[in-house]
Amino acid sequence: MEDKENSKSENQPSKNALKKAQKEAEKAAKKAQRKLEQQAGDAAVAEAEQPDVSAGCYGSYGLMRSAEKVDRVLHEVEKLDSTCADTELWLRGRLHTSRAKGKQCFFVLRQQQFSVQAVLAVSETTSRQMVKFVAAITKESIIDVCAVVKTTPNKIESCSQQDVELHVKQVWVASASEARLPLQIEDAARPDTDDGLATVGADVKLDNRILDLRTSTNQAIYRVEAGIMRLFREHLTKEGFVEINTPKIISAASEGGANVFTVSYFKTNAYLAQSPQLYKQMAIAADFGKVFTVGGVFRAEDSNTHRHLTEFVGLDMEMAFNYHYHEVVDTIGRMFVNMFKGLRDNFQTEIATINKQYPAEPFKFLEPALRLEFPEAVSMLREAGVEIGDEDDLSTPNEKFLGRLVKAKYDTDFYILDKYPLAVRPFYTMPDPNNPKQSNSYDMFMRGEEILSGAQRIHDPNYLTERATHHGIDIQTIKAYIDSFRYGCPPHAGGGIGLERVVMLYLGLDNIRKTSMFPRDPKRVTP
Amino acid sequence: MEDKENSKSENQPSKNALKKAQKEAEKAAKKAQRKLEQQAGDAAVAEAEQPDVSAGCYGSYGLMRSAEKVDRVLHEVEKLDSTCADTELWLRGRLHTSRAKGKQCFFVLRQQQFSVQAVLAVSETTSRQMVKFVAAITKESIIDVCAVVKTTPNKIESCSQQDVELHVKQVWVASASEARLPLQIEDAARPDTDDGLATVGADVKLDNRILDLRTSTNQAIYRVEAGIMRLFREHLTKEGFVEINTPKIISAASEGGANVFTVSYFKTNAYLAQSPQLYKQMAIAADFGKVFTVGGVFRAEDSNTHRHLTEFVGLDMEMAFNYHYHEVVDTIGRMFVNMFKGLRDNFQTEIATINKQYPAEPFKFLEPALRLEFPEAVSMLREAGVEIGDEDDLSTPNEKFLGRLVKAKYDTDFYILDKYPLAVRPFYTMPDPNNPKQSNSYDMFMRGEEILSGAQRIHDPNYLTERATHHGIDIQTIKAYIDSFRYGCPPHAGGGIGLERVVMLYLGLDNIRKTSMFPRDPKRVTP
Repeated sequence: MEDKENSKSENQPSKNALKKAQKEAEKAAKKAQRKLEQQAGDAAVAEAEQPDVSAGCYGSYGLMRSAEKVDRVLHEVEKLDSTCADTELWLRGRLHTSRAKGKQCFFVLRQQQFSVQAVLAVSETTSRQMVKFVAAITKESIIDVCAVVKTTPNKIESCSQQDVELHVKQVWVASASEARLPLQIEDAARPDTDDGLATVGADVKLDNRILDLRTSTNQAIYRVEAGIMRLFREHLTKEGFVEINTPKIISAASEGGANVFTVSYFKTNAYLAQSPQLYKQMAIAADFGKVFTVGGVFRAEDSNTHRHLTEFVGLDMEMAFNYHYHEVVDTIGRMFVNMFKGLRDNFQTEIATINKQYPAEPFKFLEPALRLEFPEAVSMLREAGVEIGDEDDLSTPNEKFLGRLVKAKYDTDFYILDKYPLAVRPFYTMPDPNNPKQSNSYDMFMRGEEILSGAQRIHDPNYLTERATHHGIDIQTIKAYIDSFRYGCPPHAGGGIGLERVVMLYLGLDNIRKTSMFPRDPKRVTP
Repeated sequence: MEDKENSKSENQPSKNALKKAQKEAEKAAKKAQRKLEQQAGDAAVAEAEQPDVSAGCYGSYGLMRSAEKVDRVLHEVEKLDSTCADTELWLRGRLHTSRAKGKQCFFVLRQQQFSVQAVLAVSETTSRQMVKFVAAITKESIIDVCAVVKTTPNKIESCSQQDVELHVKQVWVASASEARLPLQIEDAARPDTDDGLATVGADVKLDNRILDLRTSTNQAIYRVEAGIMRLFREHLTKEGFVEINTPKIISAASEGGANVFTVSYFKTNAYLAQSPQLYKQMAIAADFGKVFTVGGVFRAEDSNTHRHLTEFVGLDMEMAFNYHYHEVVDTIGRMFVNMFKGLRDNFQTEIATINKQYPAEPFKFLEPALRLEFPEAVSMLREAGVEIGDEDDLSTPNEKFLGRLVKAKYDTDFYILDKYPLAVRPFYTMPDPNNPKQSNSYDMFMRGEEILSGAQRIHDPNYLTERATHHGIDIQTIKAYIDSFRYGCPPHAGGGIGLERVVMLYLGLDNIRKTSMFPRDPKRVTP
């Protein structure tokens, strides 16, 4: 919406219309301001007969239009503790809840994951009018509070800041919420296990995502998500990877047209990329050596499961290696271990916040990461009574069961499964030179669910053609892919990670819609 | 291409077919290997009558399938200098050029931005056969070289490593290129100003992007691009911003359907997002405070200019402020200054490499960034003889001319232009409360071209409705946008940056297709 040239192309009104428009704008602004100030006014009028000792200490700012610069520091709720006792400070936050009780008003001020109790009582310096005004502020309004911090004798269990409360001196409404909320933040933040208390359905939450995202849980989940992206990129950058951008609009449906979204592209059709793999491999053929890319990936699968989205964020990497694809497997393993350490060490607050609503076992991992070979997995499953052939792929239930066996035996929630049967992998997978039934390919798992699939790719155009033909693929449809390797290409391997799955499984959540800020599935494209 | 479930859904061949397939795969692999070894074989056969003193010191690896792990360190061309003199080491690189001269063969080994000269001559320890073999290796093949580093008396002007050369002991082909190249790397890397020598047209380069991207210039450009993304994110993360992901598939065409790509979405239609603005603002209304997002942005504009792409990478940010939108303007200004410092200090090698092909003046900036107000710009243009009304928008030529005036007066290639006329900005722009003809909006410029457009947004649903109505917009089409502000929203401002434009203008390049690895415009969706 910000391209100036777009806005230029709008029909421009005439000069007279403009003048009229400006007058209307001014009128509109004044009207809006009046409406916002009315609340304060009402309170004042009602008590007009008695002098208001709190006059000038409460009210509404009106619409904040940057009329002037204010030299005032706003403090963070997160930082409020007993070291702040008896200091006076300003804070801005949401009115989370409020409760008037005779001449007192208790309310909770919320800021992202954090909250603090505030108290206001009629006194020599605080008028009845002010208490009434504050008690009438709608929940979810944004308010500025000036208060003295006081330690409390008993811990305040309902707030994140349990040792202090605010003794309020001023309250100003910065932005008022409508009174009727489509959902209550406390209900949306309640564990499903709290029997008898209201919870909010998944669709109601997503339909009112702006409110739902305000829960401490969601504030924490999306900070963890940002952290995972950062840890992924920082580690790979340190290891010499170059970040690239790959196009999402592509000319040919790479998988033969199945599960691909079609885009109208001027006078022709194009498609949305199902993966950046071709482009990552082109970057390798173009000498970038080690590359990663983070971006949207699109799958037109009509899957309505707990772990499928039609649009998700791919964390993709591809790397030329010197002599053996395990150089790449080890690099990816190190990246994950580093990510898990970073989360464990720097996101304790977020993880604790999330666990309050969604309890989960802490995520366990080994350093270096555990790497098993496919035949070992088959043996473990057979020993546990599962019937499985040597060259069968793992079904989703078998993957989960294997995850539990691995956890019991090795005490890790993350492992790498190497050397998949050649028969169950795509045509571009390099066969294992030492065992014709195996391939140089691997999946990686978190809590028993696959989060990365990867392989050494065939980098020779003739061999790639033969393998594709063997798979019954029409060579013409993948000509551009094959041609990428005609002018010399280093041996390489890589993999693609689904960001939302990693967040879901790391936190032990049960649905991928909890880790996509605005999820897309076959039934949902809003908000 | 890596979703296992996709590959599972392929028709699986029968067991017999699988066995047959594996045999074929083995045969194919052997055949491929034979073909690759043939070159070495041919050379050996031709000279079979005389014993080959270099036997075992040259040849081809065959297809590299990770058959075994090799414990060998490969050195980087970039690190080769006189301190390495007389050491023997292994390197892998492209055969950039080679020239046989009697019993000698000179060749250049290239690695990304760097190159070194190598020499091989028939001697007691080097056979005629080996020299012949090396002289016959096709350009762009990837080779492993074992060599002793020697200092040279005269600088080698044609290579990046000018003080040393390699005295070659072994040469192995890791991946052979086809002999006929659709373009020569040297031609693609030549400055347009080198009269009389071959250059390569822009379309030929893009059609053969894998080769074109191998030029030192492109190796450097895309490292600068990765650096800009990193500097953007690192700085904002340090300033407390949270990275978010916003959907690219959206349900409603936000700008009334103009310039929007339509996507077939199961049984209905959806659209590709023209900007993440609505979602950034929703994140602000949902208490994330300060957010940024990096991702694809799609514009179905039929513009075939030097600076328009149909798909580009948006670096977007949005920030709740306390009292004045200049808090945001200052934050964005600091981010740019930090980015320019990071590029200046950490990317000298890349910038120097790029300047060899595309000479440009070094990018100048002030700290803190220069901020002008719109009326000052109008005065400067008028003083220079341009006719412009107080409330006219800047045309593209006027923007460029203003850029030159600002550079002459303030010696900076970057500046912020604040307080645009209200009449030329979109409906959601906050009017200036102190001047009804102005707005709380700004553009930012690099070398006279706009690279960011932003504003304080109206965060009150009633005022937003009035402004939209005034602009003649059907309120129903933007209902979801307006409703985002019903439950309290802090005042906020932000902006969107086009990554490829920033790279182009920072480096002083003349076309945005030079800074998009796989550019998309109305006429190009390949490769």
